[in-house]
Amino acid sequence: MTQLLKGNMLIAQSGGPTMVINRSLVGAIQEAKRYKEIQGIYGSLHGIKGVLDENMIDLRKESKANLEAVAVTPSSALGSVRKKPAEEECLKIFGIMLKYNIRYFFYIGGNDSAETTHIINEHARKINYACRCFHIPKTIDNDLLENDHTPGFGSAAKFVACAVMGGDLDNRALLGVKIDVVMGRHAGFLTAAAALARVNPDDGPHLIYLPERPFSMKQYVEDVKRVYNKLGRCGVVVSEGISDAEGSAIATKFTTETDSHGNVQLSGTGALGDLLANEIKTQTKIARVRADTFGYLQRSFPGLVSEVDAREARAVGELAVRWAVGKDSDGSVVIRRKPGKKYAVFFERVPLKAVAKATRHMPDAFINKAGNDVTPTFLEYVRPIVGPLPKAAQFKRVRMPVVG
Amino acid sequence: MTQLLKGNMLIAQSGGPTMVINRSLVGAIQEAKRYKEIQGIYGSLHGIKGVLDENMIDLRKESKANLEAVAVTPSSALGSVRKKPAEEECLKIFGIMLKYNIRYFFYIGGNDSAETTHIINEHARKINYACRCFHIPKTIDNDLLENDHTPGFGSAAKFVACAVMGGDLDNRALLGVKIDVVMGRHAGFLTAAAALARVNPDDGPHLIYLPERPFSMKQYVEDVKRVYNKLGRCGVVVSEGISDAEGSAIATKFTTETDSHGNVQLSGTGALGDLLANEIKTQTKIARVRADTFGYLQRSFPGLVSEVDAREARAVGELAVRWAVGKDSDGSVVIRRKPGKKYAVFFERVPLKAVAKATRHMPDAFINKAGNDVTPTFLEYVRPIVGPLPKAAQFKRVRMPVVG
Repeated sequence: MTQLLKGNMLIAQSGGPTMVINRSLVGAIQEAKRYKEIQGIYGSLHGIKGVLDENMIDLRKESKANLEAVAVTPSSALGSVRKKPAEEECLKIFGIMLKYNIRYFFYIGGNDSAETTHIINEHARKINYACRCFHIPKTIDNDLLENDHTPGFGSAAKFVACAVMGGDLDNRALLGVKIDVVMGRHAGFLTAAAALARVNPDDGPHLIYLPERPFSMKQYVEDVKRVYNKLGRCGVVVSEGISDAEGSAIATKFTTETDSHGNVQLSGTGALGDLLANEIKTQTKIARVRADTFGYLQRSFPGLVSEVDAREARAVGELAVRWAVGKDSDGSVVIRRKPGKKYAVFFERVPLKAVAKATRHMPDAFINKAGNDVTPTFLEYVRPIVGPLPKAAQFKRVRMPVVG
Repeated sequence: MTQLLKGNMLIAQSGGPTMVINRSLVGAIQEAKRYKEIQGIYGSLHGIKGVLDENMIDLRKESKANLEAVAVTPSSALGSVRKKPAEEECLKIFGIMLKYNIRYFFYIGGNDSAETTHIINEHARKINYACRCFHIPKTIDNDLLENDHTPGFGSAAKFVACAVMGGDLDNRALLGVKIDVVMGRHAGFLTAAAALARVNPDDGPHLIYLPERPFSMKQYVEDVKRVYNKLGRCGVVVSEGISDAEGSAIATKFTTETDSHGNVQLSGTGALGDLLANEIKTQTKIARVRADTFGYLQRSFPGLVSEVDAREARAVGELAVRWAVGKDSDGSVVIRRKPGKKYAVFFERVPLKAVAKATRHMPDAFINKAGNDVTPTFLEYVRPIVGPLPKAAQFKRVRMPVVG
């Protein structure tokens, strides 16, 4: 066996936070402590930005108790960043890695982070600098290639299912149209998970619109009217990224008209929900129409977690370190599902470029023909990732006979 | 001892749902089963509207298991309504109560429901119809007179505190201004409860604006700039009902300009959050500004409950029946707090008119002088009602010395 690579380790977090991203981080840190080859364990603050600014912390100075407390805390404890380093920045990052004798680099994030890790890895090869680079998957969007699903998704999906369940109970009591806007720019997995809120045949959500299918305002109004006329209420869930047949996002198209500053973003605004609500108010005679935009709550809500997601998030962090050090390899950890009725996964290493750049979408088998709902196949896929949900009960409602 | 009143019982729910309103309902139903004087136990669907429509269900036909399953389900299981009956409708209600031999009437709701119960009670007296009427308190706004706090508030406050805690962790990771809009038209208790999210000295929310103090857009921008310059981020929480010095709601004032249909409502729209975010974007150089409006999630989220709130909600339902039947009395059940360090409450009966119509606001002792935060006195008041929150941990962040 060859001598293992000795030196310091650097770890960072990138992109949108999740409820379980710190479990991956702490999993990696704790695993790293098992190898004498790993000397310093450094954390870069705010992703790759902390490397460029040489703004790093000593993770060996954190007590085990505090590490475990951080592990169960939502959002990125090292801070995050939305930044893809340019070519020259990659060279600069490289210089800093040399200076600090970084021999192990771990980046927790989505496909952009995988790409950054890939670029750094390629640079290392080019100049013959021995350095193991691993990407650790994370995204509530569930849109990474190669993965059956991604850490962070299950817990966010649990939040969405709970929130939609509660919204439907609320709408059952006060009767109207309830619209919920869920995160997801290009992939509809998280929005689709709202379907888990259904227990009884008339439970919402009654309509689900995803970015994978063109959104027609006319069809939407027709759909809502049909459900409302049948049930006396209607629950709608849409992805923030729903787009028209030409591919332009509904949110962007309409919000530019009202926002004079051009600062259009999909998340952190209630504009799409308000737009969809107004459309129902003007095109139908339905009086009570309400919209909620789940916003940042769905990715950072403390105390709400899918147990499966939490376990897998920890595992991918641990495995990245184990494979980088013990197997002297580079790559990304991916989650695969074993075939069969009972839920079981296994983890594999894939080359960094296999998960970089591109994103995965909802497969056709997960979306109904009308493009306004999910299929039972999707529910089978998503249920074990999210785990058990709170139970919601209804009265049998045995009517009193009308007297006299 | 006088003979107890014999006949049927009618119970209904009104106004905005809460996470624990069904605990009061099931508490009342289960207690009622203990009295041979109570024959039929009827539930009116959608509050007083169900009485007018003679749309009632037989609650004795619900199994104990289903009753207890409904008890822990959020939102109003009998359906709700936003309706204050007019004088002639009260007479009609009366006729229906006579027809169905209703001798016990229970209405779970806020101050409007107390008033409705009061009017029905007065009518009964006037025509010498023996009927015991009780109001059972419920409101996430915590704005009922006579009560130290109201069932529903503690659980909604727990949701708000958790959501703001998560939002602040998220904003710590990506750095910017985060605005959270919380329900509360005239009373700021629920918004103020966001302060429970603070654990570390620099934790958000950093600014809290309540309907009890005039909101100045200029002062708000100054406040945000000051916090942002100090911490590199800022967390703001506002009540949906914040109003200017002239008393007109900020939300209403601005949304009428953009909504061509005149359908302005405070909840179920993201307009106020977007407005406050745009103001920061235009008046400062801060790039990342996001707003979340908690909407209906804060009153109907399944699986999230304050244990104290849950227990007290059950108790007020039970006591209303016990006092109506056993003590042959009318009134409203109120929650009082015992003086002393340790949290303890007792329940009392007050006349219906004592809680009808008027609402309670945050007392001056709960709001800081600048009108942009709460006081320690408020935190002492609210903490035991909400109960323990999830823990959020931060790294110690021991910086690596910069090399070379």
